[in-house]
Amino acid sequence: MERDFQQLADLYKTALLNDVLPFWQKHSIDPQGGYFTCLDRTGSVYDTDKFIWLQNRQIWMFSMLCNRLEPRSEWLDIAEHGAKFLAKHGRDAEGNWYFSLDRSGQPLIQPYNIFSDCFAAMAFSQFALASGQDWAREVALQAYQNVLRRQNNPKGIYNKAYPGTRSMKGLSVPMILANLTLEMEWLLPQETLEQVLKATVQEVMTDFLDQNLLYENVAPDGSHIDSFEGRLINPGHGIEAMWFMMDIAERYAPRSVRSNNLDLINQCVDGVLNTLEFAWDQTYGGIYYFLDIKGYPTQQLEWDQKLWWVHVETLVALVMGYRLTGRAECWNWYEKVHDYSWNHFADREYGEWFGYLNRRGEVLLNLKGGKWKGCFHVPRSLYLCWQEFEKLDRADSSQNKSL
Amino acid sequence: MERDFQQLADLYKTALLNDVLPFWQKHSIDPQGGYFTCLDRTGSVYDTDKFIWLQNRQIWMFSMLCNRLEPRSEWLDIAEHGAKFLAKHGRDAEGNWYFSLDRSGQPLIQPYNIFSDCFAAMAFSQFALASGQDWAREVALQAYQNVLRRQNNPKGIYNKAYPGTRSMKGLSVPMILANLTLEMEWLLPQETLEQVLKATVQEVMTDFLDQNLLYENVAPDGSHIDSFEGRLINPGHGIEAMWFMMDIAERYAPRSVRSNNLDLINQCVDGVLNTLEFAWDQTYGGIYYFLDIKGYPTQQLEWDQKLWWVHVETLVALVMGYRLTGRAECWNWYEKVHDYSWNHFADREYGEWFGYLNRRGEVLLNLKGGKWKGCFHVPRSLYLCWQEFEKLDRADSSQNKSL
Repeated sequence: MERDFQQLADLYKTALLNDVLPFWQKHSIDPQGGYFTCLDRTGSVYDTDKFIWLQNRQIWMFSMLCNRLEPRSEWLDIAEHGAKFLAKHGRDAEGNWYFSLDRSGQPLIQPYNIFSDCFAAMAFSQFALASGQDWAREVALQAYQNVLRRQNNPKGIYNKAYPGTRSMKGLSVPMILANLTLEMEWLLPQETLEQVLKATVQEVMTDFLDQNLLYENVAPDGSHIDSFEGRLINPGHGIEAMWFMMDIAERYAPRSVRSNNLDLINQCVDGVLNTLEFAWDQTYGGIYYFLDIKGYPTQQLEWDQKLWWVHVETLVALVMGYRLTGRAECWNWYEKVHDYSWNHFADREYGEWFGYLNRRGEVLLNLKGGKWKGCFHVPRSLYLCWQEFEKLDRADSSQNKSL
Repeated sequence: MERDFQQLADLYKTALLNDVLPFWQKHSIDPQGGYFTCLDRTGSVYDTDKFIWLQNRQIWMFSMLCNRLEPRSEWLDIAEHGAKFLAKHGRDAEGNWYFSLDRSGQPLIQPYNIFSDCFAAMAFSQFALASGQDWAREVALQAYQNVLRRQNNPKGIYNKAYPGTRSMKGLSVPMILANLTLEMEWLLPQETLEQVLKATVQEVMTDFLDQNLLYENVAPDGSHIDSFEGRLINPGHGIEAMWFMMDIAERYAPRSVRSNNLDLINQCVDGVLNTLEFAWDQTYGGIYYFLDIKGYPTQQLEWDQKLWWVHVETLVALVMGYRLTGRAECWNWYEKVHDYSWNHFADREYGEWFGYLNRRGEVLLNLKGGKWKGCFHVPRSLYLCWQEFEKLDRADSSQNKSL
């Protein structure tokens, strides 16, 4: 692959604006409110339940593009269409976000974890910024407070672990809280921002990163636990966490890390590269979904499958790592993951990307959206890669000029 | 395949007594109490957590063989080794059975469903019968009462469904309660036995069976719900439920069904055969793990995998159905499932059976035991098929004599 950054920027831009966004604009809008996310290969709706993560993530997607790309009224309308439905139906009496609703907005699954609240805070923060509506800002801040309040017991009364026998904490909470907090920079008091970013970056880089691999679960003090959960490596999660950290190091860099931000970025790149060495399928290509650090059988029967989000998050991490450090290994891996992803996930016939492939890279579930795949990872990655390649191209051009 | 029933009986007998039981006798006994179930291909322990379902199922297995095959003292010792450990560590202060313990018996996962209690009742009932110990009988009866008490809200406080929006009930509860109640025939009052068997058989055959397919979840009145859960077919579960029903029809037959028990058995056979038509993988062979009744993508990423328990339960259902009805389709399917199972699951090199194959029949998890696979489905199926073939052989011989 030639390093023609402008050509790559165009590839991602075209896929985002001419393929992926139109797919969701055309097929996902429920005239009764909110979005359909269960779309088959061609875009037909096969189930009408509304999963709060995905509803919020679609609001975020269209709002974010209004804020960072250009304020298109059709994008803002789509975001508002979801935001109004969710503000009305998404929360219980205490303001906690449900996990899912039926088509009409009746609650189906209780607020059993805090990720619904995380994505609500992300969504309503971007929507408030795009629309200038005060009520949306309130919804965002309330959801953010839920996350802070529940972060040490994210499953609340639905936590099945017997207290005290084997305490564990998960990577998901600090990684998403870090990303969410940076997302809400414009809305949060400086003090909260500094404090949460410092704590979450430190927790991810110290407790969960060990010998350049991210562990999915560790003891509260960051030590390892020899159990199914404690041995689990979730490569996509680890790699996504690393680009969240690089993003913070570059865009914000709280006082405590600012002086060392290139060190921090290099540590993240080491994490990404080593995770890829560990989790790349040498036989069929692609990144495994789950692995056991000791090579034991995982609990997860889907461990060897190739998932869209794992690969598109990796594309972001590699191109961002390459732009920030110029390290050749980033580019070498980028080419490998690029070829795999564009050849296996992108659907040339009906548009958008497949979500779930088996180990051999064959389509496992013939869908474009479902309970966990919506209008989020693919378009976010396309947008971010496009922007990264534009920056790389500008840097290239200015370098060429100076020759 | 020739219908040499004696040869088939010998195949199953030899596999049970010379391969599978010795594997567990050799590798699974934890000298500190209870059993290891996380065994790799060769039998080495890779994790020491103790999952209550599997602990109880191993107690059941060795006790049942003492009761139904022969009272070997080494089998009773193994059962007692587990029973003592579990009676001491398995329950919370209210007598509900935990989901898992660590190696030493400290609780790890709370009693979040009633299946731990189901398998405890099964285990301690058979162990009480084998050992004649009164305390074990008390443990069994208490666990059985837990199941009856919690059957309408099996997940208790851990139920995440919002009440009222979409009420559903699952096949697992009545099917396991039916089998468990027949298991405990010797311990339960006649009235309870009659009443529970009648109600559960009726519920399975009326609410969950529709057009010869078993639905995994239905509305409380047995109607269908067009959602991921409502569209779900779990072929292995459905087929297992059908042999539980045939077993009741033959061995017990409560007053209300006794007059029609051949009808009931034929209905069950229709269910088994039709499920196989629906769920057999025409390309690679084997029975799918999960399917959507409308052919939509399932939530379960492991839907196309081939699992040991699905296949060994099907062997039991087919040979039992053949013996009870003589229907040729049972034999034709038996041959197909026999060939697939013995060629793919049985491990000729290290003994015992693999648990998890991918769609193509290749080993997916290189283990003999884990969180869900223990000393249960394989040896139970080997024992039951052996007994069925002995009966078929006796019937054959007496027929030959009468010619």
